[in-house]
Amino acid sequence: MALALSLGRRGQGVCWPNPAVGCVVVHDGRIVGRGWTQPGGRPHAETVALAQAGEQARGATVYVTLEPCAHHGQTPPCTDALIAAGVARVVASIEDSDARVAGQGFAALREHGIEVSTGVLAEEAARDHAGFFLRTEQGRPLVTLKLASSFDGRIATETGQSQWITGPLARRTVHGMRAHHDAVMVGAGTARMDDPSLTVRDLGIAQQPVRVVVSRYLDLPFMGKLARTAGEIPLWICHGEGADAERLRAWAGLGARLLPCGARGMQLDPQEILRQLGDAGLTRVFCEGGSALAASLLIADLVDELVGFTAGLAIGADGLPAIGGLGITHLASAPRFELIETREIGPDILHRWRRAI
Amino acid sequence: MALALSLGRRGQGVCWPNPAVGCVVVHDGRIVGRGWTQPGGRPHAETVALAQAGEQARGATVYVTLEPCAHHGQTPPCTDALIAAGVARVVASIEDSDARVAGQGFAALREHGIEVSTGVLAEEAARDHAGFFLRTEQGRPLVTLKLASSFDGRIATETGQSQWITGPLARRTVHGMRAHHDAVMVGAGTARMDDPSLTVRDLGIAQQPVRVVVSRYLDLPFMGKLARTAGEIPLWICHGEGADAERLRAWAGLGARLLPCGARGMQLDPQEILRQLGDAGLTRVFCEGGSALAASLLIADLVDELVGFTAGLAIGADGLPAIGGLGITHLASAPRFELIETREIGPDILHRWRRAI
Repeated sequence: MALALSLGRRGQGVCWPNPAVGCVVVHDGRIVGRGWTQPGGRPHAETVALAQAGEQARGATVYVTLEPCAHHGQTPPCTDALIAAGVARVVASIEDSDARVAGQGFAALREHGIEVSTGVLAEEAARDHAGFFLRTEQGRPLVTLKLASSFDGRIATETGQSQWITGPLARRTVHGMRAHHDAVMVGAGTARMDDPSLTVRDLGIAQQPVRVVVSRYLDLPFMGKLARTAGEIPLWICHGEGADAERLRAWAGLGARLLPCGARGMQLDPQEILRQLGDAGLTRVFCEGGSALAASLLIADLVDELVGFTAGLAIGADGLPAIGGLGITHLASAPRFELIETREIGPDILHRWRRAI
Repeated sequence: MALALSLGRRGQGVCWPNPAVGCVVVHDGRIVGRGWTQPGGRPHAETVALAQAGEQARGATVYVTLEPCAHHGQTPPCTDALIAAGVARVVASIEDSDARVAGQGFAALREHGIEVSTGVLAEEAARDHAGFFLRTEQGRPLVTLKLASSFDGRIATETGQSQWITGPLARRTVHGMRAHHDAVMVGAGTARMDDPSLTVRDLGIAQQPVRVVVSRYLDLPFMGKLARTAGEIPLWICHGEGADAERLRAWAGLGARLLPCGARGMQLDPQEILRQLGDAGLTRVFCEGGSALAASLLIADLVDELVGFTAGLAIGADGLPAIGGLGITHLASAPRFELIETREIGPDILHRWRRAI
């Protein structure tokens, strides 16, 4: 099952809106088939693994990281494929929360005499599929907030210089993380100040994550990298209702997809932003700041995972803060996260945290 | 030698102004004596180890983490003791930089037919003795700057609440670190806001580090913990020349030692503060903020080691920054540090850095 989970992760970032499932077929103690959800979400992991196993699938045990689907979507249900292949046993990590599946996949298999066990490495599977579940259950994608800062939590000098606080190895790690998310998201300030391309580079990937920019007034430069590449790599812009019509047309003309969102106070409502992104099919969003967007997501309790890269330099209080004002007066009301890991990454440190329950 | 280094560290924080030396006597492959510089700086490590070895010292090999002293101070020179004990060989980590010793210790031993090797684990020894060397060579103690902050580099909420950002295990680790320094130092703002006792608690130590408060105008509360304990545990106050005479008398009356320091701009000159502390015998100072003192030390390039404790919570830009303004506009001019280690410490992370050369 650990192998199936690791195979499943290969689909993260490229198979949305479908879950990134992994599947291993074992016959007489030998692995005869391996599969994961393919780019675009089809074929499903089970189909790939069964095809690889061929005749060997008969009487085999199938390890799969999510309950096999039982409904006719754009592909026939995986339960049918498993039944037709004549597998003896299905070991699954976790039940699907999609109402069209939830328990029905297991039931269909059992009806056909296939032995079903569940709950194997369920916690890991729940984590891997968290984005898919969040979208199914709450209509929003999982949000990973990444902050690359100085020792004292600053993301740029007071003049806006931020390249580079962290070293090449940390930046490469960020590109790997981007590739495992469906989209990379930044606020308008970061888009203006850093002129980022927000692409995954030097990792030889076939499909770039969607680039999402949150810009209430759509006041983004037409001469920047995002504008220049909007025709080739998906660029989605979450904007407010008061955005200038001419700018809207111009960005649409450049190839950007425009997602209107309601505002809440001074900023776009982060709930609305994520609902729009969820409606559009995203399950995993990697937010890279800036401080205003990070603060707005934290205040709304919408950050599921935090990834910090801390460099060994001090910028001081006149530098740009990683997270904007949260209005917290008592520590008890500060958003809390549980440590997943910390490790050295070249001259910097990486630390990952998840929302404390 | 690794054992000798580890023994030597036991003296850190209690044997100033003397170096915290470790010594191991080995006879026929067996350890027959172990010693380290004792509290107050005497007896020296070699004396302790030789006494333990007794007659076994004859013909033995002595591992020592610093060149044995060759001058008559408050104790007779260790070289005399080694010669009298009839040891065959001395293996030392590093030469002493004290002009009264520098090479003369080794020379005295060689003159008496003792074989001398040096440079064993020299880098580690240089690090352990860094405070002693800094005081000898530059007249100032080593400075370790500790910052316990939220994920985004804040040490308190905007209302000043800072207890507790980090967990009990991190706080206990801080007490252990305090115990390995000669003094714990904070700025006046921290002393006023947190009312700290700055003592080492729950570790069963016999000698508390000196408490140093940097307060230009001596505007510290007379009702706080520092004032109440000034008679029992050393409290030194670095103050400016314009400090009120009545306050000076009052603090002296409470038992505090007053160290006048020149100012530089709005703040006391950090060079002067450290020179005063060095003159008073300190070799290792553990600075626990606040942000103004941290900034002033960083600007003057006087921070030798940085210790960060990062907790899994976000406080936001309205919280108190860990480090005050540094006036850095270009990243190239930011003070840089090299990573020593990062590890989990309960729910928090610990990261240690040293000045990049």
